[in-house]
Amino acid sequence: MKLLRIGQPGQEKPALLGPNGEYYDVSAYIDDVAGDALSDEKLNELSQLDYVDLPQLDANERIGACVGNVGKFICIGLNYADHAAESGMEVPSEPVMFFKATSAICGPNDEVEIPRKSEKSDWEVELGVVIGKRAKYVEQADAMDYVAGYCVVNDLSEREFQIERQGQWVKGKSADTFGPIGPYLVTRDEVADPQNLDMYLDVNGERRQTGNTKTMVYGVAELVSYVSQFMSLQPGDIISTGTPPGVGLGMTPPTYLKVGDTMELGIEGMGVQRQTCVVAKD
Amino acid sequence: MKLLRIGQPGQEKPALLGPNGEYYDVSAYIDDVAGDALSDEKLNELSQLDYVDLPQLDANERIGACVGNVGKFICIGLNYADHAAESGMEVPSEPVMFFKATSAICGPNDEVEIPRKSEKSDWEVELGVVIGKRAKYVEQADAMDYVAGYCVVNDLSEREFQIERQGQWVKGKSADTFGPIGPYLVTRDEVADPQNLDMYLDVNGERRQTGNTKTMVYGVAELVSYVSQFMSLQPGDIISTGTPPGVGLGMTPPTYLKVGDTMELGIEGMGVQRQTCVVAKD
Repeated sequence: MKLLRIGQPGQEKPALLGPNGEYYDVSAYIDDVAGDALSDEKLNELSQLDYVDLPQLDANERIGACVGNVGKFICIGLNYADHAAESGMEVPSEPVMFFKATSAICGPNDEVEIPRKSEKSDWEVELGVVIGKRAKYVEQADAMDYVAGYCVVNDLSEREFQIERQGQWVKGKSADTFGPIGPYLVTRDEVADPQNLDMYLDVNGERRQTGNTKTMVYGVAELVSYVSQFMSLQPGDIISTGTPPGVGLGMTPPTYLKVGDTMELGIEGMGVQRQTCVVAKD
Repeated sequence: MKLLRIGQPGQEKPALLGPNGEYYDVSAYIDDVAGDALSDEKLNELSQLDYVDLPQLDANERIGACVGNVGKFICIGLNYADHAAESGMEVPSEPVMFFKATSAICGPNDEVEIPRKSEKSDWEVELGVVIGKRAKYVEQADAMDYVAGYCVVNDLSEREFQIERQGQWVKGKSADTFGPIGPYLVTRDEVADPQNLDMYLDVNGERRQTGNTKTMVYGVAELVSYVSQFMSLQPGDIISTGTPPGVGLGMTPPTYLKVGDTMELGIEGMGVQRQTCVVAKD
């Protein structure tokens, strides 16, 4: 099952993706793709609905972030060995964890704002893990029970703000629109192996990132368990699991986003995001 | 005006603090001490209410975190020169910024959980700044217009998780109950000078931290403006402005919290928090 949020910012309706790309309104069954609606029970209930009985939403409407009311936007750093190398950093001996501001979240095809005074805005395609139920001190063997599903994340990053402007990384990860998520949440039953998914990112039509989640240093189950040792996870929290090689910081010479640039990124079975870079808004 | 949230976790009612410490229920006027209720207009409306007309809440009820539905819990690191020195770190050339998980937020007198495997849980009394309206690229001269008020924050910190377990600091700042805020939000009109407030923290009745916000490296207005260059701020976001000297990490030898320890902390005009340390819950 693929869940989306359709409508203008702040007014998105929860929807199911139909077999031909149609959007079926499920607002009669859940208030939002968020919180308690992400439980196994509720997802199971939605999966029993008969498409043909549901009202359809306008296929041309904006797609919002695929999860609403995200409480924590947790990211794992340097989680692909070859990306660590291109960043000039060691593979960490345990997961590196940082946060993005939840106010950075936007729809998968929304415009991406280049922050004022930014000269080093960069892209990062990542597999996002959406939490389905509260997790605290969870064992790795049980960790997948706490996962509602997956989505594409673009973990946009301003490298000067992140690395050169005193700590911590959050400073370069949190600008408005620096967190497109979606187009849809793919429930975990549809993903046979989250550790074998091809992923890519293009800038202006040129391939920049190519990867597969099988080269992650720490896999999804290990990450959910690991993070839950340090904080409790709530339904709707997102863990973005790191990026494969090919970011602008790692190019020779380093190459960054400028106004007018376009990005296209996708992960196998998770859909595609397309963004255009614009001047930062007030 | 002093605003509180009174009741069991998740069921807190918004309240005004009366002249004799009574709690007056304002749930007929605002849903919560959160979001849009923190605007100048709404706060002004509340300030016009006549106490005697309002229902009183049980004086023995639990005090919740003084702000509900916090979107971002932003902290400033090493913002008192003498605390930076005791931590063995330089005063930063611009503010260091990190996040705490919003799931760490709890009431001012709730039990504080010592995380599993923690041997270095530490205390930090801090002045919290509560944002009242959306702020993005705000000038320092205008920054105070975006502040709804202030509160006491205990920025509890697990130093091994924060410093010795690979980056980033958020890993040691985010355990459940590691963010008591309150007892109340003091509106900014009641705080003549946020840069001249005495603050203290006791552990088991012994004074550990003594400070005054006048020794902050970067003051409140500068911080609000600074943070707003990197991310937008929303009503209900909290910026915790750093801690004065006297944390456990800086003692000789370093001394940390253990189960059964008690903390008492306060800031001039902002009330007092009291916590007892307990074993981490599931």
